[in-house]
Amino acid sequence: MLQDLFTPSVQHALDLAGIFVFAISGALLAVRKNFDVFGIAVLAEVTALGGGVLRDLIIGAVPPAAFTDLGYFLTPLVAAALVFFLHPEVERIQTGVNVFDAAGLGLFCVTGTTKAYEHGLGLTASAALGVATAVGGGVLRDIIANEVPSLVRWDRDLYAVPAMVGTAMVALCIKFDALSAVTSGIAVVTAFVLRLLAMRYHWRAPRAWNRRSTAVEPGDTPGEFKATA
Amino acid sequence: MLQDLFTPSVQHALDLAGIFVFAISGALLAVRKNFDVFGIAVLAEVTALGGGVLRDLIIGAVPPAAFTDLGYFLTPLVAAALVFFLHPEVERIQTGVNVFDAAGLGLFCVTGTTKAYEHGLGLTASAALGVATAVGGGVLRDIIANEVPSLVRWDRDLYAVPAMVGTAMVALCIKFDALSAVTSGIAVVTAFVLRLLAMRYHWRAPRAWNRRSTAVEPGDTPGEFKATA
Amino acid sequence: MLQDLFTPSVQHALDLAGIFVFAISGALLAVRKNFDVFGIAVLAEVTALGGGVLRDLIIGAVPPAAFTDLGYFLTPLVAAALVFFLHPEVERIQTGVNVFDAAGLGLFCVTGTTKAYEHGLGLTASAALGVATAVGGGVLRDIIANEVPSLVRWDRDLYAVPAMVGTAMVALCIKFDALSAVTSGIAVVTAFVLRLLAMRYHWRAPRAWNRRSTAVEPGDTPGEFKATA
Repeated sequence: MLQDLFTPSVQHALDLAGIFVFAISGALLAVRKNFDVFGIAVLAEVTALGGGVLRDLIIGAVPPAAFTDLGYFLTPLVAAALVFFLHPEVERIQTGVNVFDAAGLGLFCVTGTTKAYEHGLGLTASAALGVATAVGGGVLRDIIANEVPSLVRWDRDLYAVPAMVGTAMVALCIKFDALSAVTSGIAVVTAFVLRLLAMRYHWRAPRAWNRRSTAVEPGDTPGEFKATA
Repeated sequence: MLQDLFTPSVQHALDLAGIFVFAISGALLAVRKNFDVFGIAVLAEVTALGGGVLRDLIIGAVPPAAFTDLGYFLTPLVAAALVFFLHPEVERIQTGVNVFDAAGLGLFCVTGTTKAYEHGLGLTASAALGVATAVGGGVLRDIIANEVPSLVRWDRDLYAVPAMVGTAMVALCIKFDALSAVTSGIAVVTAFVLRLLAMRYHWRAPRAWNRRSTAVEPGDTPGEFKATA
Repeated sequence: MLQDLFTPSVQHALDLAGIFVFAISGALLAVRKNFDVFGIAVLAEVTALGGGVLRDLIIGAVPPAAFTDLGYFLTPLVAAALVFFLHPEVERIQTGVNVFDAAGLGLFCVTGTTKAYEHGLGLTASAALGVATAVGGGVLRDIIANEVPSLVRWDRDLYAVPAMVGTAMVALCIKFDALSAVTSGIAVVTAFVLRLLAMRYHWRAPRAWNRRSTAVEPGDTPGEFKATA
């Protein structure tokens, strides 16, 4: 039932679009980190498919879709090739990439939640896994690039919250038996728009209250974390 | 049989206690690394549940318990909220946290070993997976925080050895058909006390013999590793 | 059929040899990073078994072979002990270690591909997973050691390409029903020799075209990435 929200071909096209934009973000980081062409391909694949593979391993849907659908595997390679040859042009449209990444975030958190629920997880666990699907690839990307994941850094615009709102909407729709192409589309768009607003207005999340020590950790990049008053 | 060592409610309460204290350690590191509130929650969840999820994926018990028991998922969030609002107070009782972390270590290594054995692994593999369950969450925590895992650093008090002793005791009890609530309780307490002693007397593990080069690796934090005579 | 390419004992001996040399490379990095004896053992185990465990989780072959075959688990400990006691001697024969590592690379990419294909993956996915099996342990090793994985760094000799050529040969052999002990042996040797040549002549992979910014990323080790003209 849930998998019939969209026609299979529409769903597949949306999946590939999400994979493509996530792969672009991975490939761009690889170029900035000075990786070679294989590093670019590896980071594109991991960023695009990592969240979904993690989800599929956890719900026991093995082999993961990334290894059974050739399109899922080849799409990141196309993105990597594009960045490899046209890197300055892709960088110049960074804003455009961010918009697509936001679309991928919205789409992945919704499809992740519904797939987890179909495999028998509870609503809360499904929503949590939906968020993990959406943000997992980016965390793996940053770990391989040996950086503190964007997701957890306070000086980055909100990323998890839009995904959480989207998954919460899907979970509520499932609970009240109101999930349809329209309602899940609304959830995708809500997460997408929230992420765009977070980038536009630089919404940040608070850090711990009453932090006494603002000392920069040894090993941190100077200036990476600014001390606060 | 093995799962009846404790009554289910006692076992569950012990699990939640272990998850809680591991989550506290993850949340505290997140605050020290200057992460925002979502970073604190992510690091609390990963530290508390990472070892168990890894174990469940390896023994094929999917979806992992962390995704089927709502209490497992919510407990780290409570710990994260506590650290978020009361960070200085929690830091002040760091010693107390370390004591609880030691208790979690003892508990997780024993339950990890028995669960792995129940799923058909051999005794040595079960013991290895028990240790991995106990220390895996902490390693993931340090990887996401972009630090060299405490587990492998020579300038940290022994952490793996207490877990190894505890799992070895459990494995021997299983071998000689002597596993009971009492004997596994003794294993938990042994690992717990050994870890406390290691912290109290700063027991360290040796590094490679005849190391000629004591040069600090490029990229290491100055002073992180001291040259030895 | 595929698993009968070699007699089981020959296959097992080759697997153990590959595991051993990969473990040596992990243990040597642990010594260079100043880890204690447990860190050396952990890095040896992860480097040697990580790629295979990842492959087995993805194809659903749980528990992974690393946890059912005691020899797979103990071999890295022997390698770790060797490096622990004889570190300078092992370092001196670094070239020898590299030769063995190249042999492990060739062997693992071939066995990884055939095992994935036996578990029902398509040819392209099997080849991709074969490469992941061969290089995955090294990536995990570098992540735990908190370094940018060798695999993706442009200033390292080609590592992925020999594995890709080997897996492509195996995939083609499977496609044309020509896989035998001889042809898969040729694939192993081809990957092995290509890796040796890459080390001998310092073959490197290109980085992105038209990179305008050659600035060293903040957080990178000074001198780790040299600016290019």
